[in-house]
Amino acid sequence: MLADDLRQAAIAPKASLLELHFEIEQLNNAYADVLDNERYEEFPDLFVEDCLYRVMPRENHLLGLPIAAIRCESKAMIKDRVNAARESTMAEPRTLRHFISNIRILEADAEAICAAANVLIVQTMIGRMTEIVLSGFYLDRIVRSDGRLRFKERLCVYDSLLLPNSLIAPV
Amino acid sequence: MLADDLRQAAIAPKASLLELHFEIEQLNNAYADVLDNERYEEFPDLFVEDCLYRVMPRENHLLGLPIAAIRCESKAMIKDRVNAARESTMAEPRTLRHFISNIRILEADAEAICAAANVLIVQTMIGRMTEIVLSGFYLDRIVRSDGRLRFKERLCVYDSLLLPNSLIAPV
Amino acid sequence: MLADDLRQAAIAPKASLLELHFEIEQLNNAYADVLDNERYEEFPDLFVEDCLYRVMPRENHLLGLPIAAIRCESKAMIKDRVNAARESTMAEPRTLRHFISNIRILEADAEAICAAANVLIVQTMIGRMTEIVLSGFYLDRIVRSDGRLRFKERLCVYDSLLLPNSLIAPV
Repeated sequence: MLADDLRQAAIAPKASLLELHFEIEQLNNAYADVLDNERYEEFPDLFVEDCLYRVMPRENHLLGLPIAAIRCESKAMIKDRVNAARESTMAEPRTLRHFISNIRILEADAEAICAAANVLIVQTMIGRMTEIVLSGFYLDRIVRSDGRLRFKERLCVYDSLLLPNSLIAPV
Repeated sequence: MLADDLRQAAIAPKASLLELHFEIEQLNNAYADVLDNERYEEFPDLFVEDCLYRVMPRENHLLGLPIAAIRCESKAMIKDRVNAARESTMAEPRTLRHFISNIRILEADAEAICAAANVLIVQTMIGRMTEIVLSGFYLDRIVRSDGRLRFKERLCVYDSLLLPNSLIAPV
Repeated sequence: MLADDLRQAAIAPKASLLELHFEIEQLNNAYADVLDNERYEEFPDLFVEDCLYRVMPRENHLLGLPIAAIRCESKAMIKDRVNAARESTMAEPRTLRHFISNIRILEADAEAICAAANVLIVQTMIGRMTEIVLSGFYLDRIVRSDGRLRFKERLCVYDSLLLPNSLIAPV
């Protein structure tokens, strides 16, 4: 079905970008899997030691305001955060689920990859319909460390001005 | 833009995993396409003869309880199920749409591939806004049969305790 | 983990289709990115000069009715449309976000690729929870022009009969 010229045109220039895209997708999927299943102890290892993890409303991001709902400036701070999430008693148990799509590689050099992705998070509480708690996007600086991709920086920008009430845990 | 070392590091080990991931994505997309367009007669052929198709709430899955909302232990039972769905008169017509993302290959050997994916299903009824009816994940055992991937086992785990009222048809 | 026979079976026939799939995914991601960030001036360049862009309800599409909520028969008409969207004063500001998944290549020859994808669009308004405004699918005819993929035809079919009130801008 595919003509040879289309095939030829497609393969050569995109091969390595495709591989990199796939690796980033896998990193995002591991990230979602860890959070959706509350395996918080695995969360910090998705980041390198010297890292920055922030969650902020779109308004602040567009205006360049530094105020963030979550701000962790090192892997140690991320560990503290997930311990807090682990120990916190939420009013009601809930299941969160991440849908990460539209992954874009913005820039890549020998040191790091800048990438973005859209994210939709839905939550299901006992006796209630599943509902959207967050839509937004990730803006990442990703590096290769110990043979796999990890976040040097992850910024989660959410579209709402309202702070989702489930924002005790990382998103 | 992409440095050579990044390229080299990326291509070699991931090539075949990437191809396999793509094939699984295509299987999932065909699955969603068949259900969203109610081409139920094509549904059984996404499975091998000797198969297991189940739909169950997350609670039961986590507790290891066998009780499932849908349980088909062979392709013949799946055929019966879709015939029932075809013939049932639902109170109101609705359009369902599957969004399958976050595909993960968990394990693969010469015989089968274990994979997972997140799924969000929305429904649109006449005169109503589109709403979420199901969020959850698939847990699959996939085999190559007659030149294409098919499900040996598909388990759909949904986050809610409530049974979606559209669960006459497979999800 | 991956057995050699699985690897071999997977790589050969799918390589170019995979590359093409990746390019189409990138085109879709660029499309979503432009609309979600209201960079409407970049929108027409996702199409070739002589193109067709339509948005219609599923009912009309299934019945073969030509009536569309949006119908642009050239790149110039698309430019007019986005200018109108830019200048319109919506009652309330909102953030839209596209989640495009389940990309399927339906056919491809030397001239064009026919492809489909599912789309979920959510909107966030000030003081309100994020909500679904549109679920549906794209049906595309894509060509290679000036070294990149562009839409020759894009048809957005939405599941609802109701016209989303945010349908001033392209979706």
